[in-house]
Amino acid sequence: MSRADAAGPLRQAQAVVRARTSGPGFYDVTRKVQQHLATMGAGSGVLTLFIRHTSASLVVQENADPTVQADLVDALDGLAPANRRWRHADEGPDDMPAHVKSMLTQTSLAIPVFTGHLQLGTWQAIYVAEHRSAPHEREVALAWIGTIIDNSG
Amino acid sequence: MSRADAAGPLRQAQAVVRARTSGPGFYDVTRKVQQHLATMGAGSGVLTLFIRHTSASLVVQENADPTVQADLVDALDGLAPANRRWRHADEGPDDMPAHVKSMLTQTSLAIPVFTGHLQLGTWQAIYVAEHRSAPHEREVALAWIGTIIDNSG
Amino acid sequence: MSRADAAGPLRQAQAVVRARTSGPGFYDVTRKVQQHLATMGAGSGVLTLFIRHTSASLVVQENADPTVQADLVDALDGLAPANRRWRHADEGPDDMPAHVKSMLTQTSLAIPVFTGHLQLGTWQAIYVAEHRSAPHEREVALAWIGTIIDNSG
Repeated sequence: MSRADAAGPLRQAQAVVRARTSGPGFYDVTRKVQQHLATMGAGSGVLTLFIRHTSASLVVQENADPTVQADLVDALDGLAPANRRWRHADEGPDDMPAHVKSMLTQTSLAIPVFTGHLQLGTWQAIYVAEHRSAPHEREVALAWIGTIIDNSG
Repeated sequence: MSRADAAGPLRQAQAVVRARTSGPGFYDVTRKVQQHLATMGAGSGVLTLFIRHTSASLVVQENADPTVQADLVDALDGLAPANRRWRHADEGPDDMPAHVKSMLTQTSLAIPVFTGHLQLGTWQAIYVAEHRSAPHEREVALAWIGTIIDNSG
Repeated sequence: MSRADAAGPLRQAQAVVRARTSGPGFYDVTRKVQQHLATMGAGSGVLTLFIRHTSASLVVQENADPTVQADLVDALDGLAPANRRWRHADEGPDDMPAHVKSMLTQTSLAIPVFTGHLQLGTWQAIYVAEHRSAPHEREVALAWIGTIIDNSG
């Protein structure tokens, strides 16, 4: 039932993934994350992802049908409508709804990794969910805790 | 204020918890998770839980009164109604609401463990929240990072 | 792109942060969390935060403008109204909405730490979100996995 690999002591490594966004939507960063794991020499352990913003967030969702992401954006719009009277309005009508949408989704994720592979389900991808209208460059801090496969030899 | 045990170097171990579901609701997996910790010989560290699905999710909630879970299911139904016009409808009317409910709850959890014990509060339990109508077998990947108590001696 | 420090093997340490609350709102615990990291001698790794309650939760949000937090409280009230007919009502009209708000926000957070510093974005703070009306003392379990800087020499 349980399994462990024999690749020696645990170590930590960190990196940053950047995503350029152009309006509300879901931006798939799965491949970039996997590339960082490979660069780090990640073996088995846990990858932590943390988005360093409060008007964009992290979501693991289905990657098979792009209409799923369009519906998720609509659902968030319904839960945090732009036309409500918000106290905090001086950064634009899309700012406070973006904070609400960020609060209702994820700031951090922790994903098990086994022998270098993210333990995502078949249809799962990792998305930066952008909630602002203007283009942004978003930063996701990655922190690896696990075994390291030394590729330097 | 802070505390550490002296059980030696950190190690990692992984396992999978499976939950059979029969329609929307909360399925308590706390005991299964604890059994895996015991099997792994978990001492002190952090247990990561990650559900490998996008129409079911993880929730830590009250286990004292089962009407709490029934109310939580109703609340999620209100936030993601099945009778809305969703673009993504070819997997059935309960599919897209299930993705929304999954997005609004948790895909991953990280729970501190001290000397083998999950640091849950008195009334907290770990649930797989099923959002689909048909029966499913759901997989939750567990990843342990912490000290290991060797029971083999 | 990726970085690791050379401070030796990974270790774990745990602590508890307490927050006294006086009604619904966001209570900033960032400084207390940072103090615990310093006391633990935390170098680089991941800090896990886990709130041991089901009617209060964790949120990372903007700390610049306090009206943001007031709007977030209002948004949560709209999503889980106190005047709905809840099955679970014997702990008061604010109890079941508090469980819903807790479910829609976070029970656990994982935050990367590099050379002792939480990798929060410029405007991010860590909040205990209180959802009950009566005053409470809330407990957040902290678990450190990472390098430890020995200050004892």
